[in-house]
Amino acid sequence: MTKTKHSDISLLIKKIIAFREARDWKQFHNPKDVAISLALEAAELLEHFQWKNPSEIKQHIKEHKTEIGEELADVLYWVLLMSHDLQIDISGALERKIKKNIIKYPIKKAKGRHTKYTKL
Amino acid sequence: MTKTKHSDISLLIKKIIAFREARDWKQFHNPKDVAISLALEAAELLEHFQWKNPSEIKQHIKEHKTEIGEELADVLYWVLLMSHDLQIDISGALERKIKKNIIKYPIKKAKGRHTKYTKL
Amino acid sequence: MTKTKHSDISLLIKKIIAFREARDWKQFHNPKDVAISLALEAAELLEHFQWKNPSEIKQHIKEHKTEIGEELADVLYWVLLMSHDLQIDISGALERKIKKNIIKYPIKKAKGRHTKYTKL
Amino acid sequence: MTKTKHSDISLLIKKIIAFREARDWKQFHNPKDVAISLALEAAELLEHFQWKNPSEIKQHIKEHKTEIGEELADVLYWVLLMSHDLQIDISGALERKIKKNIIKYPIKKAKGRHTKYTKL
Repeated sequence: MTKTKHSDISLLIKKIIAFREARDWKQFHNPKDVAISLALEAAELLEHFQWKNPSEIKQHIKEHKTEIGEELADVLYWVLLMSHDLQIDISGALERKIKKNIIKYPIKKAKGRHTKYTKL
Repeated sequence: MTKTKHSDISLLIKKIIAFREARDWKQFHNPKDVAISLALEAAELLEHFQWKNPSEIKQHIKEHKTEIGEELADVLYWVLLMSHDLQIDISGALERKIKKNIIKYPIKKAKGRHTKYTKL
Repeated sequence: MTKTKHSDISLLIKKIIAFREARDWKQFHNPKDVAISLALEAAELLEHFQWKNPSEIKQHIKEHKTEIGEELADVLYWVLLMSHDLQIDISGALERKIKKNIIKYPIKKAKGRHTKYTKL
Repeated sequence: MTKTKHSDISLLIKKIIAFREARDWKQFHNPKDVAISLALEAAELLEHFQWKNPSEIKQHIKEHKTEIGEELADVLYWVLLMSHDLQIDISGALERKIKKNIIKYPIKKAKGRHTKYTKL
Protein backbone atom coordinates (compact mmCIF):
# COMPACT_ATOMS: atom_id res chain seq x y z
CA MET A 1 0.00 0.00 0.00
CA THR A 2 1.28 3.43 -0.87
CA LYS A 3 1.39 5.65 2.15
CA THR A 4 -0.84 8.60 1.34
CA LYS A 5 -0.63 11.99 2.98
CA HIS A 6 -4.15 12.00 4.37
CA SER A 7 -3.87 8.77 6.35
CA ASP A 8 -1.71 10.45 8.97
CA ILE A 9 -3.65 11.07 12.18
CA SER A 10 -1.79 14.22 13.16
CA LEU A 11 -2.62 15.78 9.78
CA LEU A 12 -6.30 14.95 10.20
CA ILE A 13 -6.26 16.53 13.65
CA LYS A 14 -4.63 19.65 12.20
CA LYS A 15 -7.43 20.00 9.66
CA ILE A 16 -10.11 19.51 12.31
CA ILE A 17 -8.55 22.14 14.56
CA ALA A 18 -7.96 24.60 11.69
CA PHE A 19 -11.66 24.29 10.79
CA ARG A 20 -12.63 25.01 14.38
CA GLU A 21 -10.17 27.87 14.92
CA ALA A 22 -11.47 29.68 11.84
CA ARG A 23 -14.98 29.59 13.33
CA ASP A 24 -13.95 30.31 16.91
CA TRP A 25 -15.84 27.23 18.12
CA LYS A 26 -13.44 25.98 20.78
CA GLN A 27 -15.51 27.83 23.37
CA PHE A 28 -18.41 25.40 22.76
CA HIS A 29 -16.37 22.19 22.88
CA ASN A 30 -16.45 21.20 26.53
CA PRO A 31 -15.66 17.49 27.08
CA LYS A 32 -19.17 16.54 28.23
CA ASP A 33 -20.88 17.84 25.10
CA VAL A 34 -18.13 16.45 22.87
CA ALA A 35 -18.63 13.00 24.44
CA ILE A 36 -22.39 13.36 23.90
CA SER A 37 -21.75 14.19 20.23
CA LEU A 38 -19.59 11.14 19.84
CA ALA A 39 -22.28 8.94 21.38
CA LEU A 40 -24.99 10.44 19.15
CA GLU A 41 -22.92 9.81 16.02
CA ALA A 42 -22.35 6.23 17.17
CA ALA A 43 -26.14 5.90 17.44
CA GLU A 44 -26.61 7.21 13.89
CA LEU A 45 -24.15 4.61 12.66
CA LEU A 46 -25.95 1.86 14.55
CA GLU A 47 -29.26 2.91 12.99
CA HIS A 48 -27.98 1.67 9.62
CA PHE A 49 -27.98 -1.93 10.85
CA GLN A 50 -31.22 -1.95 12.79
CA TRP A 51 -34.19 -4.18 11.87
CA LYS A 52 -32.12 -6.01 9.28
CA ASN A 53 -30.98 -9.60 9.01
CA PRO A 54 -27.49 -10.45 7.73
CA SER A 55 -28.47 -10.55 4.06
CA GLU A 56 -30.42 -7.29 4.29
CA ILE A 57 -27.39 -5.73 5.97
CA LYS A 58 -25.13 -6.89 3.15
CA GLN A 59 -27.45 -5.29 0.63
CA HIS A 60 -27.78 -2.10 2.68
CA ILE A 61 -24.00 -1.71 2.90
CA LYS A 62 -23.69 -2.06 -0.84
CA GLU A 63 -26.28 0.67 -1.42
CA HIS A 64 -25.32 3.04 1.42
CA LYS A 65 -21.56 2.78 1.68
CA THR A 66 -21.06 6.54 1.37
CA GLU A 67 -23.56 7.32 4.13
CA ILE A 68 -22.06 4.71 6.44
CA GLY A 69 -18.62 6.14 5.70
CA GLU A 70 -19.91 9.57 6.67
CA GLU A 71 -21.20 8.29 10.00
CA LEU A 72 -17.87 6.59 10.71
CA ALA A 73 -16.11 9.84 9.80
CA ASP A 74 -18.38 11.76 12.20
CA VAL A 75 -17.38 9.43 15.02
CA LEU A 76 -13.69 9.71 14.10
CA TYR A 77 -14.01 13.49 13.99
CA TRP A 78 -15.02 13.64 17.66
CA VAL A 79 -12.49 10.99 18.71
CA LEU A 80 -9.67 13.05 17.20
CA LEU A 81 -10.98 16.39 18.44
CA MET A 82 -11.33 15.12 22.00
CA SER A 83 -7.90 13.47 21.90
CA HIS A 84 -6.43 16.80 20.84
CA ASP A 85 -8.26 18.84 23.48
CA LEU A 86 -7.34 16.45 26.28
CA GLN A 87 -3.76 16.10 24.99
CA ILE A 88 -4.12 12.37 24.59
CA ASP A 89 -1.83 10.57 22.15
CA ILE A 90 -4.61 8.54 20.56
CA SER A 91 -2.37 6.43 18.30
CA GLY A 92 -0.21 5.52 21.26
CA ALA A 93 -3.31 4.72 23.32
CA LEU A 94 -4.59 2.40 20.59
CA GLU A 95 -1.21 0.68 20.24
CA ARG A 96 -1.07 0.10 24.00
CA LYS A 97 -4.64 -1.24 23.93
CA ILE A 98 -3.74 -3.76 21.24
CA LYS A 99 -0.67 -4.86 23.24
CA LYS A 100 -2.87 -5.31 26.33
CA ASN A 101 -5.33 -7.39 24.34
CA ILE A 102 -2.54 -9.57 22.97
CA ILE A 103 -1.77 -10.52 26.58
CA LYS A 104 -5.41 -10.73 27.69
CA TYR A 105 -6.37 -12.99 24.81
CA PRO A 106 -3.52 -15.45 24.22
CA ILE A 107 -3.84 -17.04 20.78
CA LYS A 108 -3.82 -20.57 22.17
CA LYS A 109 -6.85 -19.96 24.37
CA ALA A 110 -8.72 -17.35 22.34
CA LYS A 111 -8.44 -18.76 18.82
CA GLY A 112 -11.91 -19.15 17.36
CA ARG A 113 -13.58 -18.52 20.69
CA HIS A 114 -15.40 -15.32 21.45
CA THR A 115 -15.44 -15.58 25.21
CA LYS A 116 -14.80 -12.63 27.44
CA TYR A 117 -11.21 -12.76 28.72
CA THR A 118 -12.35 -13.18 32.32
CA LYS A 119 -13.94 -16.47 31.34
CA LEU A 120 -11.11 -17.84 29.20
CA MET B 1 5.66 17.78 15.51
CA THR B 2 7.81 14.88 14.35
CA LYS B 3 5.83 12.53 12.20
CA THR B 4 5.91 9.19 13.99
CA LYS B 5 5.35 5.84 12.40
CA HIS B 6 2.39 4.88 14.56
CA SER B 7 0.20 7.83 13.64
CA ASP B 8 -0.51 6.36 10.24
CA ILE B 9 -4.06 5.04 10.03
CA SER B 10 -3.27 2.20 7.62
CA LEU B 11 -0.62 0.89 10.01
CA LEU B 12 -3.05 0.95 12.91
CA ILE B 13 -5.58 -0.95 10.82
CA LYS B 14 -2.92 -3.53 9.95
CA LYS B 15 -2.22 -4.15 13.63
CA ILE B 16 -5.93 -4.47 14.44
CA ILE B 17 -6.45 -6.96 11.63
CA ALA B 18 -3.30 -8.96 12.47
CA PHE B 19 -4.54 -9.28 16.06
CA ARG B 20 -7.89 -10.54 14.80
CA GLU B 21 -6.49 -12.91 12.18
CA ALA B 22 -4.27 -14.62 14.76
CA ARG B 23 -7.38 -15.36 16.87
CA ASP B 24 -9.66 -16.24 13.96
CA TRP B 25 -12.25 -13.73 15.17
CA LYS B 26 -13.43 -12.32 11.84
CA GLN B 27 -16.30 -14.81 11.95
CA PHE B 28 -17.80 -12.93 14.93
CA HIS B 29 -17.44 -9.41 13.53
CA ASN B 30 -20.69 -8.85 11.68
CA PRO B 31 -21.45 -5.14 11.12
CA LYS B 32 -24.43 -5.02 13.50
CA ASP B 33 -22.49 -6.30 16.49
CA VAL B 34 -19.46 -4.17 15.59
CA ALA B 35 -21.70 -1.07 15.50
CA ILE B 36 -23.14 -2.09 18.88
CA SER B 37 -19.61 -2.40 20.27
CA LEU B 38 -18.74 1.04 19.02
CA ALA B 39 -21.87 2.51 20.64
CA LEU B 40 -21.14 0.75 23.95
CA GLU B 41 -17.58 2.09 24.03
CA ALA B 42 -18.93 5.58 23.30
CA ALA B 43 -21.21 5.14 26.33
CA GLU B 44 -18.27 4.14 28.52
CA LEU B 45 -16.45 7.29 27.43
CA LEU B 46 -19.51 9.42 28.19
CA GLU B 47 -19.75 7.92 31.66
CA HIS B 48 -16.53 9.73 32.61
CA PHE B 49 -18.23 13.11 32.29
CA GLN B 50 -21.55 12.31 33.92
CA TRP B 51 -22.78 14.01 37.12
CA LYS B 52 -19.89 16.45 37.04
CA ASN B 53 -19.77 20.21 36.63
CA PRO B 54 -17.04 21.85 34.51
CA SER B 55 -14.52 22.15 37.34
CA GLU B 56 -15.11 18.55 38.48
CA ILE B 57 -14.62 17.44 34.88
CA LYS B 58 -11.32 19.31 34.68
CA GLN B 59 -10.13 17.57 37.83
CA HIS B 60 -11.40 14.18 36.63
CA ILE B 61 -9.53 14.51 33.33
CA LYS B 62 -6.32 15.32 35.18
CA GLU B 63 -6.67 12.20 37.34
CA HIS B 64 -8.06 9.78 34.75
CA LYS B 65 -6.35 10.75 31.50
CA THR B 66 -5.10 7.21 30.88
CA GLU B 67 -8.56 5.68 31.36
CA ILE B 68 -10.20 8.27 29.11
CA GLY B 69 -7.50 7.61 26.51
CA GLU B 70 -8.31 3.91 26.69
CA GLU B 71 -12.00 4.55 26.06
CA LEU B 72 -11.17 6.78 23.09
CA ALA B 73 -8.86 4.06 21.80
CA ASP B 74 -11.66 1.50 22.15
CA VAL B 75 -13.93 3.65 20.02
CA LEU B 76 -11.19 4.21 17.45
CA TYR B 77 -10.53 0.47 17.37
CA TRP B 78 -14.07 -0.26 16.16
CA VAL B 79 -14.13 2.69 13.76
CA LEU B 80 -10.99 1.40 12.05
CA LEU B 81 -12.06 -2.26 12.10
CA MET B 82 -15.43 -1.44 10.57
CA SER B 83 -13.86 0.83 7.95
CA HIS B 84 -11.57 -2.03 6.97
CA ASP B 85 -14.33 -4.64 6.83
CA LEU B 86 -16.64 -2.42 4.77
CA GLN B 87 -13.75 -1.25 2.54
CA ILE B 88 -14.34 2.36 3.46
CA ASP B 89 -11.45 4.80 3.09
CA ILE B 90 -11.98 6.43 6.49
CA SER B 91 -9.34 9.15 6.09
CA GLY B 92 -10.84 10.15 2.78
CA ALA B 93 -14.33 10.11 4.29
CA LEU B 94 -13.19 12.42 7.10
CA GLU B 95 -11.45 14.78 4.68
CA ARG B 96 -14.61 14.96 2.57
CA LYS B 97 -16.67 15.61 5.69
CA ILE B 98 -14.46 18.54 6.68
CA LYS B 99 -14.72 19.97 3.16
CA LYS B 100 -18.52 19.67 3.32
CA ASN B 101 -18.58 21.45 6.68
CA ILE B 102 -16.39 24.25 5.34
CA ILE B 103 -19.15 24.94 2.81
CA LYS B 104 -22.03 24.33 5.24
CA TYR B 105 -20.57 26.64 7.85
CA PRO B 106 -19.07 29.67 6.07
CA ILE B 107 -16.68 31.53 8.40
CA LYS B 108 -18.50 34.83 8.00
CA LYS B 109 -21.79 33.41 9.21
CA ALA B 110 -20.62 30.72 11.62
CA LYS B 111 -17.83 32.50 13.47
CA GLY B 112 -18.51 32.39 17.20
CA ARG B 113 -22.05 31.09 16.67
CA HIS B 114 -23.02 27.55 17.43
CA THR B 115 -26.18 27.40 15.40
CA LYS B 116 -27.11 24.41 13.32
CA TYR B 117 -26.31 25.09 9.68
CA THR B 118 -29.95 24.92 8.65
CA LYS B 119 -30.63 27.91 10.88
CA LEU B 120 -27.62 30.03 9.89
CA MET C 1 -55.47 -9.79 34.98
CA THR C 2 -55.91 -8.46 38.49
CA LYS C 3 -54.95 -4.83 38.67
CA THR C 4 -52.20 -4.63 41.24
CA LYS C 5 -51.24 -1.54 43.16
CA HIS C 6 -47.70 -1.39 41.92
CA SER C 7 -48.55 -1.19 38.23
CA ASP C 8 -49.74 2.38 38.56
CA ILE C 9 -47.26 4.85 37.07
CA SER C 10 -48.07 7.70 39.44
CA LEU C 11 -47.36 5.42 42.41
CA LEU C 12 -44.02 4.39 40.95
CA ILE C 13 -43.12 8.05 40.44
CA LYS C 14 -44.08 8.79 44.05
CA LYS C 15 -41.70 6.12 45.29
CA ILE C 16 -38.88 7.39 43.08
CA ILE C 17 -39.33 10.95 44.28
CA ALA C 18 -39.67 9.93 47.95
CA PHE C 19 -36.37 8.05 47.64
CA ARG C 20 -34.74 11.14 46.17
CA GLU C 21 -36.24 13.62 48.61
CA ALA C 22 -34.98 11.62 51.59
CA ARG C 23 -31.43 11.90 50.19
CA ASP C 24 -31.70 15.50 49.03
CA TRP C 25 -30.54 14.51 45.54
CA LYS C 26 -32.76 16.73 43.43
CA GLN C 27 -29.92 19.24 43.28
CA PHE C 28 -27.88 16.80 41.15
CA HIS C 29 -30.65 15.85 38.73
CA ASN C 30 -30.29 18.37 35.95
CA PRO C 31 -31.92 17.21 32.68
CA LYS C 32 -28.67 16.80 30.76
CA ASP C 33 -27.14 14.38 33.27
CA VAL C 34 -30.45 12.57 33.71
CA ALA C 35 -30.66 12.06 29.93
CA ILE C 36 -27.06 10.79 29.96
CA SER C 37 -28.00 8.31 32.72
CA LEU C 38 -30.90 7.06 30.71
CA ALA C 39 -28.68 6.56 27.65
CA LEU C 40 -26.04 4.73 29.70
CA GLU C 41 -28.63 2.36 31.16
CA ALA C 42 -29.94 1.72 27.64
CA ALA C 43 -26.37 0.79 26.67
CA GLU C 44 -26.11 -1.64 29.58
CA LEU C 45 -29.32 -3.29 28.45
CA LEU C 46 -28.05 -3.55 24.88
CA GLU C 47 -24.84 -5.19 26.10
CA HIS C 48 -26.87 -8.26 27.07
CA PHE C 49 -27.66 -9.01 23.42
CA GLN C 50 -24.28 -8.26 21.88
CA TRP C 51 -22.17 -10.89 20.07
CA LYS C 52 -25.01 -13.39 20.26
CA ASN C 53 -27.07 -15.08 17.59
CA PRO C 54 -30.81 -15.65 18.07
CA SER C 55 -30.44 -19.00 19.82
CA GLU C 56 -27.69 -17.72 22.12
CA ILE C 57 -29.92 -14.75 22.95
CA LYS C 58 -32.80 -17.07 23.83
CA GLN C 59 -30.52 -19.01 26.17
CA HIS C 60 -29.09 -15.83 27.68
CA ILE C 61 -32.55 -14.45 28.42
CA LYS C 62 -33.49 -17.68 30.18
CA GLU C 63 -30.39 -17.49 32.40
CA HIS C 64 -30.28 -13.72 32.98
CA LYS C 65 -33.90 -12.64 33.18
CA THR C 66 -33.43 -10.94 36.55
CA GLU C 67 -30.43 -8.91 35.35
CA ILE C 68 -32.21 -7.87 32.15
CA GLY C 69 -35.22 -6.88 34.24
CA GLU C 70 -32.95 -4.73 36.39
CA GLU C 71 -31.56 -2.92 33.36
CA LEU C 72 -35.07 -2.29 32.05
CA ALA C 73 -36.04 -1.00 35.50
CA ASP C 74 -33.03 1.34 35.49
CA VAL C 75 -34.16 2.81 32.18
CA LEU C 76 -37.75 3.14 33.44
CA TYR C 77 -36.47 4.82 36.60
CA TRP C 78 -34.93 7.69 34.61
CA VAL C 79 -37.89 7.93 32.22
CA LEU C 80 -40.25 8.42 35.14
CA LEU C 81 -37.95 10.74 37.08
CA MET C 82 -37.43 12.99 34.07
CA SER C 83 -41.15 12.99 33.25
CA HIS C 84 -41.82 14.12 36.80
CA ASP C 85 -39.17 16.84 36.80
CA LEU C 86 -40.26 18.25 33.45
CA GLN C 87 -43.96 17.93 34.38
CA ILE C 88 -44.65 15.69 31.44
CA ASP C 89 -47.66 13.37 31.58
CA ILE C 90 -45.77 10.33 30.34
CA SER C 91 -48.80 7.99 30.12
CA GLY C 92 -50.66 10.59 28.09
CA ALA C 93 -47.61 11.09 25.86
CA LEU C 94 -47.40 7.36 25.22
CA GLU C 95 -51.13 7.10 24.48
CA ARG C 96 -50.84 9.98 22.00
CA LYS C 97 -47.82 8.33 20.39
CA ILE C 98 -49.74 5.09 19.88
CA LYS C 99 -52.64 7.03 18.34
CA LYS C 100 -50.23 8.80 15.99
CA ASN C 101 -48.72 5.47 14.96
CA ILE C 102 -52.16 4.01 14.31
CA ILE C 103 -52.60 6.74 11.70
CA LYS C 104 -49.03 6.62 10.39
CA TYR C 105 -49.15 2.87 9.92
CA PRO C 106 -52.61 1.92 8.59
CA ILE C 107 -53.21 -1.81 9.09
CA LYS C 108 -53.96 -2.39 5.41
CA LYS C 109 -50.61 -1.04 4.29
CA ALA C 110 -48.41 -1.93 7.25
CA LYS C 111 -49.56 -5.47 8.02
CA GLY C 112 -46.59 -7.79 7.96
CA ARG C 113 -44.34 -5.16 6.44
CA HIS C 114 -41.63 -3.44 8.42
CA THR C 115 -41.14 -0.44 6.17
CA LYS C 116 -40.64 3.04 7.53
CA TYR C 117 -43.92 4.96 7.27
CA THR C 118 -42.45 7.45 4.82
CA LYS C 119 -41.93 4.60 2.38
CA LEU C 120 -45.28 2.87 2.81
CA MET D 1 -54.03 13.10 42.35
CA THR D 2 -56.98 11.30 40.80
CA LYS D 3 -55.97 7.90 39.63
CA THR D 4 -56.61 7.87 35.90
CA LYS D 5 -57.14 4.81 33.80
CA HIS D 6 -54.24 5.40 31.50
CA SER D 7 -51.58 5.50 34.18
CA ASP D 8 -51.79 1.76 34.64
CA ILE D 9 -48.79 0.01 33.15
CA SER D 10 -50.60 -3.18 32.20
CA LEU D 11 -53.13 -1.15 30.22
CA LEU D 12 -50.37 0.66 28.35
CA ILE D 13 -48.77 -2.68 27.53
CA LYS D 14 -52.11 -3.97 26.24
CA LYS D 15 -52.40 -1.03 23.85
CA ILE D 16 -48.84 -1.48 22.61
CA ILE D 17 -49.41 -5.16 21.96
CA ALA D 18 -52.80 -4.61 20.32
CA PHE D 19 -51.19 -2.12 17.95
CA ARG D 20 -48.51 -4.66 17.09
CA GLU D 21 -50.85 -7.63 16.73
CA ALA D 22 -53.03 -5.74 14.25
CA ARG D 23 -49.96 -5.16 12.06
CA ASP D 24 -48.43 -8.61 12.55
CA TRP D 25 -45.13 -7.05 13.60
CA LYS D 26 -44.12 -9.43 16.36
CA GLN D 27 -42.01 -11.32 13.83
CA PHE D 28 -39.67 -8.32 13.56
CA HIS D 29 -39.28 -7.67 17.30
CA ASN D 30 -36.31 -9.78 18.26
CA PRO D 31 -34.69 -8.64 21.54
CA LYS D 32 -31.46 -7.39 19.94
CA ASP D 33 -33.21 -5.00 17.57
CA VAL D 34 -35.66 -3.92 20.26
CA ALA D 35 -32.73 -3.08 22.55
CA ILE D 36 -31.12 -1.13 19.69
CA SER D 37 -34.38 0.80 19.22
CA LEU D 38 -34.49 1.66 22.87
CA ALA D 39 -30.88 2.91 22.76
CA LEU D 40 -31.54 5.00 19.63
CA GLU D 41 -34.57 6.66 21.23
CA ALA D 42 -32.47 7.40 24.32
CA ALA D 43 -29.96 9.10 21.99
CA GLU D 44 -32.72 11.21 20.42
CA LEU D 45 -33.79 12.32 23.90
CA LEU D 46 -30.21 13.20 24.82
CA GLU D 47 -29.86 15.28 21.67
CA HIS D 48 -32.32 17.79 23.14
CA PHE D 49 -29.86 18.75 25.88
CA GLN D 50 -26.66 18.83 23.84
CA TRP D 51 -24.57 22.01 23.35
CA LYS D 52 -26.70 23.88 25.88
CA ASN D 53 -25.88 25.41 29.23
CA PRO D 54 -28.38 25.17 32.13
CA SER D 55 -30.28 28.35 31.23
CA GLU D 56 -30.49 27.38 27.54
CA ILE D 57 -31.79 23.98 28.62
CA LYS D 58 -34.46 25.59 30.77
CA GLN D 59 -35.59 27.67 27.80
CA HIS D 60 -35.46 24.68 25.44
CA ILE D 61 -37.64 22.60 27.75
CA LYS D 62 -40.22 25.36 27.90
CA GLU D 63 -40.39 25.55 24.09
CA HIS D 64 -40.07 21.83 23.28
CA LYS D 65 -41.93 20.06 26.07
CA THR D 66 -44.13 18.13 23.64
CA GLU D 67 -41.17 16.86 21.60
CA ILE D 68 -39.25 15.84 24.72
CA GLY D 69 -42.38 14.06 25.96
CA GLU D 70 -42.55 12.19 22.66
CA GLU D 71 -38.95 11.01 23.00
CA LEU D 72 -39.60 9.86 26.55
CA ALA D 73 -42.71 8.05 25.32
CA ASP D 74 -40.66 6.35 22.59
CA VAL D 75 -38.24 5.05 25.20
CA LEU D 76 -41.09 3.90 27.44
CA TYR D 77 -42.71 2.17 24.46
CA TRP D 78 -39.71 -0.11 23.98
CA VAL D 79 -39.23 -0.67 27.72
CA LEU D 80 -42.81 -1.92 28.02
CA LEU D 81 -42.74 -3.94 24.80
CA MET D 82 -39.53 -5.71 25.80
CA SER D 83 -40.82 -6.35 29.32
CA HIS D 84 -43.89 -7.96 27.80
CA ASP D 85 -41.98 -10.10 25.31
CA LEU D 86 -39.50 -11.32 27.91
CA GLN D 87 -42.27 -11.84 30.49
CA ILE D 88 -40.63 -9.46 32.93
CA ASP D 89 -42.80 -7.82 35.59
CA ILE D 90 -41.36 -4.34 35.03
CA SER D 91 -43.23 -2.63 37.90
CA GLY D 92 -42.02 -5.30 40.28
CA ALA D 93 -38.47 -4.98 38.92
CA LEU D 94 -38.55 -1.22 39.51
CA GLU D 95 -39.96 -1.62 43.03
CA ARG D 96 -37.20 -4.12 43.84
CA LYS D 97 -34.60 -1.76 42.42
CA ILE D 98 -35.79 1.09 44.63
CA LYS D 99 -35.68 -1.20 47.66
CA LYS D 100 -32.12 -2.21 46.78
CA ASN D 101 -31.11 1.44 46.45
CA ILE D 102 -32.66 2.26 49.82
CA ILE D 103 -30.21 -0.22 51.34
CA LYS D 104 -27.27 0.75 49.10
CA TYR D 105 -27.67 4.44 49.84
CA PRO D 106 -28.57 4.83 53.55
CA ILE D 107 -30.03 8.30 54.18
CA LYS D 108 -27.49 9.10 56.89
CA LYS D 109 -24.54 8.56 54.57
CA ALA D 110 -26.01 9.55 51.22
CA LYS D 111 -27.94 12.71 52.12
CA GLY D 112 -26.78 15.56 49.91
CA ARG D 113 -23.82 13.56 48.60
CA HIS D 114 -23.72 12.21 45.10
CA THR D 115 -21.03 9.61 45.61
CA LYS D 116 -21.22 6.18 44.10
CA TYR D 117 -22.35 3.69 46.73
CA THR D 118 -19.06 1.80 46.60
CA LYS D 119 -17.31 4.94 47.81
CA LEU D 120 -19.78 5.95 50.54
